[in-house]
Amino acid sequence: MYRDRIRHPSLFGKVVSAEEAASLIKDGMTVGMSGFTRSGEAKAVPFALAERAKTDPLKITLLTGASLGNDLDKTLVEAGVLARRLPFQADPALRKAINRGEVMFIDQHLSETVEMLRTRQLGPIDVAVVEAVAITEDGGIIPTTSVGNSATFAILAEKVIIEINLSQPVELEGLHDIYIPTRRPFREPIPIVACESRVGLPFIPIDPSKIAAIVVTEKKDSAATVAPPDADTRAIAGHLIEFLRHEVSLGRLSNTLQPLQAGIGSIANAVLHGLIESPFHSLKMYSEVLQDSTFDLFDAGKLLFASGSSITLSEEKYRAVLPNLPSYKNRILLRPQEISNHPEIIRRLGLIGINTALEFDLYGNVNSTHVGGTMMMNGIGGSGDFARNCYLSVFVTKSIAKNGAISSVVPMVSHVDHTEHDVDILITEIGLADLRGLAPRERAKVVIDNCVHPAYRDQLADYYRRALTRGGHTPHLIEEAFSWHVRAAKTGSMREAVAAD
Amino acid sequence: MYRDRIRHPSLFGKVVSAEEAASLIKDGMTVGMSGFTRSGEAKAVPFALAERAKTDPLKITLLTGASLGNDLDKTLVEAGVLARRLPFQADPALRKAINRGEVMFIDQHLSETVEMLRTRQLGPIDVAVVEAVAITEDGGIIPTTSVGNSATFAILAEKVIIEINLSQPVELEGLHDIYIPTRRPFREPIPIVACESRVGLPFIPIDPSKIAAIVVTEKKDSAATVAPPDADTRAIAGHLIEFLRHEVSLGRLSNTLQPLQAGIGSIANAVLHGLIESPFHSLKMYSEVLQDSTFDLFDAGKLLFASGSSITLSEEKYRAVLPNLPSYKNRILLRPQEISNHPEIIRRLGLIGINTALEFDLYGNVNSTHVGGTMMMNGIGGSGDFARNCYLSVFVTKSIAKNGAISSVVPMVSHVDHTEHDVDILITEIGLADLRGLAPRERAKVVIDNCVHPAYRDQLADYYRRALTRGGHTPHLIEEAFSWHVRAAKTGSMREAVAAD
Ligand SMILES: CC(C)(COP(=O)(O)OP(=O)(O)OC[C@H]1O[C@@H](n2cnc3c(N)ncnc32)[C@H](O)[C@@H]1OP(=O)(O)O)[C@@H](O)C(=O)NCCC(=O)NCCS
Ligand SMILES: CC(C)(COP(=O)(O)OP(=O)(O)OC[C@H]1O[C@@H](n2cnc3c(N)ncnc32)[C@H](O)[C@@H]1OP(=O)(O)O)[C@@H](O)C(=O)NCCC(=O)NCCS
Repeated sequence: MYRDRIRHPSLFGKVVSAEEAASLIKDGMTVGMSGFTRSGEAKAVPFALAERAKTDPLKITLLTGASLGNDLDKTLVEAGVLARRLPFQADPALRKAINRGEVMFIDQHLSETVEMLRTRQLGPIDVAVVEAVAITEDGGIIPTTSVGNSATFAILAEKVIIEINLSQPVELEGLHDIYIPTRRPFREPIPIVACESRVGLPFIPIDPSKIAAIVVTEKKDSAATVAPPDADTRAIAGHLIEFLRHEVSLGRLSNTLQPLQAGIGSIANAVLHGLIESPFHSLKMYSEVLQDSTFDLFDAGKLLFASGSSITLSEEKYRAVLPNLPSYKNRILLRPQEISNHPEIIRRLGLIGINTALEFDLYGNVNSTHVGGTMMMNGIGGSGDFARNCYLSVFVTKSIAKNGAISSVVPMVSHVDHTEHDVDILITEIGLADLRGLAPRERAKVVIDNCVHPAYRDQLADYYRRALTRGGHTPHLIEEAFSWHVRAAKTGSMREAVAAD
Repeated sequence: MYRDRIRHPSLFGKVVSAEEAASLIKDGMTVGMSGFTRSGEAKAVPFALAERAKTDPLKITLLTGASLGNDLDKTLVEAGVLARRLPFQADPALRKAINRGEVMFIDQHLSETVEMLRTRQLGPIDVAVVEAVAITEDGGIIPTTSVGNSATFAILAEKVIIEINLSQPVELEGLHDIYIPTRRPFREPIPIVACESRVGLPFIPIDPSKIAAIVVTEKKDSAATVAPPDADTRAIAGHLIEFLRHEVSLGRLSNTLQPLQAGIGSIANAVLHGLIESPFHSLKMYSEVLQDSTFDLFDAGKLLFASGSSITLSEEKYRAVLPNLPSYKNRILLRPQEISNHPEIIRRLGLIGINTALEFDLYGNVNSTHVGGTMMMNGIGGSGDFARNCYLSVFVTKSIAKNGAISSVVPMVSHVDHTEHDVDILITEIGLADLRGLAPRERAKVVIDNCVHPAYRDQLADYYRRALTRGGHTPHLIEEAFSWHVRAAKTGSMREAVAAD
């Protein structure tokens, strides 16, 4: 059954149980596993590891591409296996353990982890565990629905465990473009000049003698948990499309726009979805995650090409797309996240990047990670790679959260992930602020006028008015800058008490 | 006299007085002028403009490369000429006007301004004023001691004014490498693969018919105002060298290190100077500004090559270097700041970047621009271009300022220019914190143990201890996070009052 998936005959003997493969992972090791935004993660060995930890406790440093599906982070953290975790996560149980200080989480720009591994500023990787569709005649590994950091993990690791996943269609073969930058200081330019540039191999090239074990699995990827567009996210999409139309009318963009990047989450997905009903056409994506909206855009005839590091779909979309992969094949490439997120390429292609904020402030600084300045939500992910290097950096969020108890537009963000220099456009369902070429005092005005929820507008305008009396390039009442967050922590709401009338 | 400097004979007739040239600049225009870290700025036309403004008030948007010498920003701001200013400045008078809200200052990553101009997200440029050593037979402009944004200003401007500066030695010719990235979405990789890669022209190529006026000047560049190394900056240099030696001993670097970048200012200059007495050799620089220390390293036989966007020296060093330019010529290139600071090249070459912080916090976030969170000092300059994309991002600062009334290590920085993700190493005269691969709670410990001044150590440790009781990935007492800044504003010092004994 799985033999046609292992085409290097000497490797048949390496097929073992998940438990046996997991026994290669010892206490204190650094392990690199496949997996990027819930897709293509190793699905057998880590569970066997968690099981073993019940009787034989162990702690590891776990690196992945990004977040994992199948409640893997939850399982590992509940089994007490995770000492350190990087570079991203999005699991509620792990999040809690991180915020309790039990797991050391190293939150990194997604393009940078492998640079640090390669220069031995991180690592070394003892064991890599990589999900694959197949192993080629030469021992090359064909990844599944994500590439993430798998290629570099496998290349650098002492030992490699392969999980051949029979539920992943063989048609994924040919979709990957594995390019590894040459060694510094002799690095050559990365030759990608368009979303569709194919510059690498369709498999991860490693010495087959490093393959220490092969495990055969059938577990499926978890479906994405993206909420369908609602009135607010539709309004956000509408503001963006109106803005882009205006840019076209000024001759700054054409109707084919520039290559698009969209972050994870419901809002970004809804925004992309909104492009179906737009005048734009012949679009291309150079993004991280190919979501439902990517395929909807293909099907609507709007999208020519999509480059990403993973495919993460809803249940329904998986059912529609996976059997039809051949029909999308010449229009998709999956790349290592170092390449999908590489500053060199993002700047060269001139992307329009759309990412999500938890909150932003008067001056356009963005917090995408820390609730109340201290509690980690997910991580910065690729948002910094894109926001810094884009042609146009857009951040979206609903103007309020928690039924209005929280304003997503605040005097000063409680944590900065993206500085004002990296934020061109801010959008809430209320409206859009175009911050390009504006000084901080001008930014404050357009943010107050366009983005803040009416319930908080006067309160924000009042803060700004009083801050102005103190002067400064970036006026603030430093002792009050976090007063909204403090109030929310104390009273449950950022709203100022108003005198009863 | 100046005729050998204007080699395109049809241009002789364009030579006019500074006043006449300045008359091309009208109220409301956007003007791009040469000048980068006090060198190579236009020195006649802007003064004539300031003079004219006394009787004929006008306001312009002024773009430059970076800061200007000869008190030019002061003169212009005092004449009321500046409505908007970008992307950097370092003038005390202008700084005050910015902080009073009189001049709108748009503080940008230095590599990004021309991308925005090119895509008409900023601009258009009505007039460019560029200092030159000479104009070639084809009308090409040979810049002087800086390139900055001059090439793109001249290429995009409607009209170009050239200031031929006879005090700038003709030997500067041949030092420049003018490369302009091709247009997106058809941009090709920038072919620089080493500090010494020469990829462009030795002059700025423009249509000579755009040259509207030529002014002949003799005013010299201002000297740099860098303080000589002191005990603290020597200690900082010592910590860095010890750290780099350790990296070499671990096999992560060789004794030739990686190409070096050093920010402006006394500390960075002192740190580079410290390399003279180090075991490192055959060094290269890929930086913004070539300072005194660059030439000291050449003279000490430590440095093989230096690429930058300007040469800015002390009085004494100018006297030593300018007459001897030919002897340095094959070892120096001056590039547009878009290229000296380009993310693509910084990442490819794998730089060691050394920049200066005003303050940093427990978790390694850095503030390089805003005193007390509101008052602009200079601007972010190129520090973000380098810190984000470096192989190793180092920030240096003295542990205290204002005779100890201010701690440069604080619970939370009052403004974020560089997030923890972009900061690998922090150094004060007290010691060095290596933050690579550490989670925030681990970062806090090494910062407290290694960087903070003894006078503030207990106070910082106490804040952190209390913050820990609240939990979180990045523990803070949000209502107290800026209490040190508030106290300094109220009492003149960040020190907590201690009970008299
Ligand atoms: C910012 C981010 C968390 C938003 O996620 P999302 O699913 O689109 O947004 P939601 O509106 O559902 O918000 C998620 C949660 O945050 C809460 N929230 C939103 N704004 C908030 C704020 N200002 N303060 C506190 N909580 C807030 C929501 O109420 C919701 O809480 P719940 O899970 O208890 O319901 C997510 O996009 C992210 O992790 N981004 C960072 C990484 C990134 O950008 N990666 C992509 C780059 S390619
Ligand atoms: C950060 C920066 C201002 C430091 O400049 P410097 O000349 O090396 O440092 P100094 O120690 O002399 O400090 C400059 C002033 O800031 C004050 N200062 C330093 N730390 C301070 C702090 N934490 N709070 C308030 N003031 C502080 C000093 O007292 C001094 O004041 P003075 O001018 O009244 O004497 C400067 O490097 C800069 O502008 N950097 C940002 C841009 C940049 O990095 N460009 C280069 C990239 S290539």
